[in-house]
Amino acid sequence: MNSYGTLFRISTFGESHGPAIGVIIDGCPAGLSIDENFIQSELNRRKPGQSKITTQRKEDDTFKILSGVFEGLSTGTPIALVIENQDQRSKDYSHIQNTFRPSHADFTYESKYGVRDYRGGGRSSARETAARVAAGAIAKLLLKNSGVEISAFVSQVGELKVPPYTELDLSKTEETIIRCPDPATAEKMIALIDEVRLARDTIGGIVTGVIKNSPVGLGEPVFDKLHAELGKAMLSINAVKGFEYGSGFEGVKLRGSQHNDEFVKEGGRIRTKTNHSGGVQGGISNGEDIYFNVAFKPVATIMQDQPSVDKDGNEAIVSGKGRHDPCVVPRAVPIVEAMAAIVMADFLMRNKVAKLS
Amino acid sequence: MNSYGTLFRISTFGESHGPAIGVIIDGCPAGLSIDENFIQSELNRRKPGQSKITTQRKEDDTFKILSGVFEGLSTGTPIALVIENQDQRSKDYSHIQNTFRPSHADFTYESKYGVRDYRGGGRSSARETAARVAAGAIAKLLLKNSGVEISAFVSQVGELKVPPYTELDLSKTEETIIRCPDPATAEKMIALIDEVRLARDTIGGIVTGVIKNSPVGLGEPVFDKLHAELGKAMLSINAVKGFEYGSGFEGVKLRGSQHNDEFVKEGGRIRTKTNHSGGVQGGISNGEDIYFNVAFKPVATIMQDQPSVDKDGNEAIVSGKGRHDPCVVPRAVPIVEAMAAIVMADFLMRNKVAKLS
Amino acid sequence: MNSYGTLFRISTFGESHGPAIGVIIDGCPAGLSIDENFIQSELNRRKPGQSKITTQRKEDDTFKILSGVFEGLSTGTPIALVIENQDQRSKDYSHIQNTFRPSHADFTYESKYGVRDYRGGGRSSARETAARVAAGAIAKLLLKNSGVEISAFVSQVGELKVPPYTELDLSKTEETIIRCPDPATAEKMIALIDEVRLARDTIGGIVTGVIKNSPVGLGEPVFDKLHAELGKAMLSINAVKGFEYGSGFEGVKLRGSQHNDEFVKEGGRIRTKTNHSGGVQGGISNGEDIYFNVAFKPVATIMQDQPSVDKDGNEAIVSGKGRHDPCVVPRAVPIVEAMAAIVMADFLMRNKVAKLS
Amino acid sequence: MNSYGTLFRISTFGESHGPAIGVIIDGCPAGLSIDENFIQSELNRRKPGQSKITTQRKEDDTFKILSGVFEGLSTGTPIALVIENQDQRSKDYSHIQNTFRPSHADFTYESKYGVRDYRGGGRSSARETAARVAAGAIAKLLLKNSGVEISAFVSQVGELKVPPYTELDLSKTEETIIRCPDPATAEKMIALIDEVRLARDTIGGIVTGVIKNSPVGLGEPVFDKLHAELGKAMLSINAVKGFEYGSGFEGVKLRGSQHNDEFVKEGGRIRTKTNHSGGVQGGISNGEDIYFNVAFKPVATIMQDQPSVDKDGNEAIVSGKGRHDPCVVPRAVPIVEAMAAIVMADFLMRNKVAKLS
Repeated sequence: MNSYGTLFRISTFGESHGPAIGVIIDGCPAGLSIDENFIQSELNRRKPGQSKITTQRKEDDTFKILSGVFEGLSTGTPIALVIENQDQRSKDYSHIQNTFRPSHADFTYESKYGVRDYRGGGRSSARETAARVAAGAIAKLLLKNSGVEISAFVSQVGELKVPPYTELDLSKTEETIIRCPDPATAEKMIALIDEVRLARDTIGGIVTGVIKNSPVGLGEPVFDKLHAELGKAMLSINAVKGFEYGSGFEGVKLRGSQHNDEFVKEGGRIRTKTNHSGGVQGGISNGEDIYFNVAFKPVATIMQDQPSVDKDGNEAIVSGKGRHDPCVVPRAVPIVEAMAAIVMADFLMRNKVAKLS
Repeated sequence: MNSYGTLFRISTFGESHGPAIGVIIDGCPAGLSIDENFIQSELNRRKPGQSKITTQRKEDDTFKILSGVFEGLSTGTPIALVIENQDQRSKDYSHIQNTFRPSHADFTYESKYGVRDYRGGGRSSARETAARVAAGAIAKLLLKNSGVEISAFVSQVGELKVPPYTELDLSKTEETIIRCPDPATAEKMIALIDEVRLARDTIGGIVTGVIKNSPVGLGEPVFDKLHAELGKAMLSINAVKGFEYGSGFEGVKLRGSQHNDEFVKEGGRIRTKTNHSGGVQGGISNGEDIYFNVAFKPVATIMQDQPSVDKDGNEAIVSGKGRHDPCVVPRAVPIVEAMAAIVMADFLMRNKVAKLS
Repeated sequence: MNSYGTLFRISTFGESHGPAIGVIIDGCPAGLSIDENFIQSELNRRKPGQSKITTQRKEDDTFKILSGVFEGLSTGTPIALVIENQDQRSKDYSHIQNTFRPSHADFTYESKYGVRDYRGGGRSSARETAARVAAGAIAKLLLKNSGVEISAFVSQVGELKVPPYTELDLSKTEETIIRCPDPATAEKMIALIDEVRLARDTIGGIVTGVIKNSPVGLGEPVFDKLHAELGKAMLSINAVKGFEYGSGFEGVKLRGSQHNDEFVKEGGRIRTKTNHSGGVQGGISNGEDIYFNVAFKPVATIMQDQPSVDKDGNEAIVSGKGRHDPCVVPRAVPIVEAMAAIVMADFLMRNKVAKLS
Repeated sequence: MNSYGTLFRISTFGESHGPAIGVIIDGCPAGLSIDENFIQSELNRRKPGQSKITTQRKEDDTFKILSGVFEGLSTGTPIALVIENQDQRSKDYSHIQNTFRPSHADFTYESKYGVRDYRGGGRSSARETAARVAAGAIAKLLLKNSGVEISAFVSQVGELKVPPYTELDLSKTEETIIRCPDPATAEKMIALIDEVRLARDTIGGIVTGVIKNSPVGLGEPVFDKLHAELGKAMLSINAVKGFEYGSGFEGVKLRGSQHNDEFVKEGGRIRTKTNHSGGVQGGISNGEDIYFNVAFKPVATIMQDQPSVDKDGNEAIVSGKGRHDPCVVPRAVPIVEAMAAIVMADFLMRNKVAKLS
């Protein structure tokens, strides 16, 4: 199913080279002011052609709201939002009609469905994430009402990485085209990506997400733990290979006595001195910062000839064509934020029925 | 909601010190032979008191099937399975009635619900995972029909780690109490855990899961990608801090030209030469091994006095009491397998409606 | 799937002659006082052997809560509730192992699943409704907090029917064994059922449900309209053949000018003068009484020999055996109430997220 | 939530006077030939302005498929289908901005959401059903593959009714503008509606649905019984007040010995001699005709002045304006068929996982 969320629920549709992509948001509470400029600005952060280190493909990604908003306010009915595909150029893709691109979804879609829209990856194209960013913008508007702040930034490209987020000034993220708030590292990352691009290759990276001012109590015990849903949401983004939160994979090396977060009373409320928990305990937010890392593999489309097979298993060459990203992470930042916002908006709604009021 | 899965759907219930815990499996197809001995053997792999490096607490974890099985076969109706709690000893827990244990779910449950069964963590206790293991055993029986094989093992404790799974003989996993198939490392891990235990401390580790012989085509595009559901399922296990599959976090350092898995025809079917994809492309299985790592933090309960606060924010001391695991990973192995089996069983069912037949 | 409800969600399990039946209630908000005596009293209203016009079979229907309640309060975790089957007497059912009882589910279950627990109808037995009544009792406790009152009564047996509910004193429903609040008609109904019983036959009837003091705003537009969910819930009860609300089937004969309910201001709030709408407009409660009729067919098990076929299509005789109800409606009253309560509790929860607060 | 169905799942969106309405169909299996002409012909059966007894409003209801179909075949990805709203004429509706039309959803939407698109009823307009008809057309294409035939017809207008469906030639339904296959009654119905229309009033009616050639085994036990889902689907259509199947409300008057359907072997398969069961036993199809009645109230919009109140409870007059249907049933026929098709398509898919194959 192409839906995500329980109460704040999004359903996306669309192929990269069909007439349009879009999303229905069902469960947005009535009375929310829908700021269309903000939605567009979020889409602009994701759109191709922003800078020299992203694909030079041009897509405007202008959207149209078809329903669910009346005189600027959400009405409680489904918000349908459509983005027309402009840069279709389907001829570019005929060469891969019968050949499976390495580490793409061509082979698996063909096997699963027997029929597929091969143009630009069709449904498996990362273009689908534009619909998520639009929905995420609405989730952000909803969260703003509750004071929750969502941000993300590039924390690693290849082997280049930044210090822990607590040592960074996250307000600087948008100042560099790589969306890394550490200016010195940002510069190196940009240089590295440029080098990789010239080598007609691609490289991976990590996006770190930080959620501030979450209310205590979001997340559901057992299966729908806050971090489990965050993990699923992030892993559902194209090219993601891993997710960790709080102390993450490094935390396995610690002793319990080092890892435990001591409770203290501070500023009139119960807080923790350290935050290895990443703001989540037992699957439920404890009011501290929620932070997590999302690993993106190197983009599979490279500007090189690669050996492969066709539908019938015959050897074939896949040639790199078109305009693609040498590294996905700068454009992934708004996508990570969008998915985080959708997860948090959903849990905010779900928490309204946790106890008798 | 305390349910997981779309078509093969499990719903667990129960607190660690209530009358019983259990699970309903809804959507198990009719006609499956339900081997109760196998279910018990899986529960035995998870139960406490197995070895010197696990908690010495004794729980038999014998189960009873209340419905859904007739003359040894599943009937297509819900399979309800109950495990009575025997070792309740509630008096042990009165001391934490009003105090929040560090890095446990006491504070978040109290905040979310206003009322909670504080005995042994109640619903947040890892005891809930026994219900998952029982359900996972039934999922394994279902997968066996399709030839899918699920296994897991301990790949890291603290800083001690094993080589990649492809260099190991996974049939040796159950030969050591740590459930690590690399005998030399296993010995060191056991010694390390023993040392940690004597220091009244705990330590984290990693469990690696491997799924062999998956049919091509399992997993759903977009949100319910195979690895996204695996990730959610793993992250929903108590104490898990991270999930990665295929090349994972290390993969971000590679170039696309290194990372891409070349397609070849081999043995009459299309395969990949390498497997950085971890058996999943575009969220859908490609027939190669699916492998992933699950990071477990050090157990939060340590046999030491820890400063904390009580409900009212007053300072309080939490004393380590009872019998607990110094390291969770050996007992986590069957839990990881169970959740992987549930995910795969669900996708196996879902795939039956992917195309017109 | 054996679940019903979105936020207040019940999942039932169990066969009539297995070890137990039961229900998990997931989504009951924390802090609700769970009155076990009330649950038992509701089960007693449904249980067999209450009077001369119901089956003489004896089942105690005592229940046990396994989870989700701590010191008398719901904790927000799943409430598992089990009722053991006592009067199993499986030998009674061997004669129908291979023969399909007319107008029962034997043939359809056999065709759908290939295997079934034939004893007493197994999963298709109306015994399953005991689990609904237990869950409904908890829903009633939740609704009581909001002032919502659920009631039902027998309004028709065969051709005998009572005046509209507005002309009846519903507090008299429990005063007669037929659960009809119109004493004169009640007496005739009892005599009719007795006559039918002596003729070794069965008869149908209608149960009317009335929901008073519903808040305005419950129900969701489009598919999950309040009356659509009530209809589904009622139609899911064994032996139900029809559902109508408000003016119902009779309403089709009216003109719009007769049928429309005029709005007026009364007692400080907006009300309608008439109530052909049955308290629901556009799928959403308007604060007036919600009332509806549920048609029950005559019980399929009759104390007569009936021609039928066996699994292989050979002619066979089904003999009426055992102790069965000559008319299902008196025992159906608490079941109708239970399902109505579950529907309303669910919508009460869902409505908490309809608008920004 | 604005979605219906479990595996074949539709989600509709749109207000009557917004830019567009539409539907996403998620779960349509890949490889289905999508006949766009057929979809349009179904939409044409529902559209306004067809005949003198329907509204004279003109809407073309032409649709556009945005995704999920490639070279004429479904691809297994979501099919998004949009119908632009052409006849908006919003000025017509300003007079009801603050006044509640009797027996419409104005008051309940206003109360539930605090904000609403009042133009033409907005989301509560029956215009939403065009999206259902489009989705139903695709469901019909899917069912055709399995031989299932869906039909519906007008069986009653006011007090005028036709004989049982088994005595009618259903192929004649489309021959009259009233969609009643009994020519003599059809003529009377048309005359009655015309009379009502001239009196500036409206009238109700009944649509009967008949499903032929259903496979045995569709429907799920307990809550998702075939007839319970059919009931919900029908009751979710605007203006519906009741649903009954098989013997329905009349069946309550029968004895069990009259009502039971005797099993016989006929034509190599097990059938029933009579069909009071309406093709469904224990919630599961038995292969006989599934038939049901759907009661529609008289249209609430009448061409008369009606007393009402405004938002503040002040007395106000609602004047009948615009072009509306004097009787909804002729245009409801394709809607009933569409919803029946969607229910059956969903159960067809769900049944594929009922047993091990």
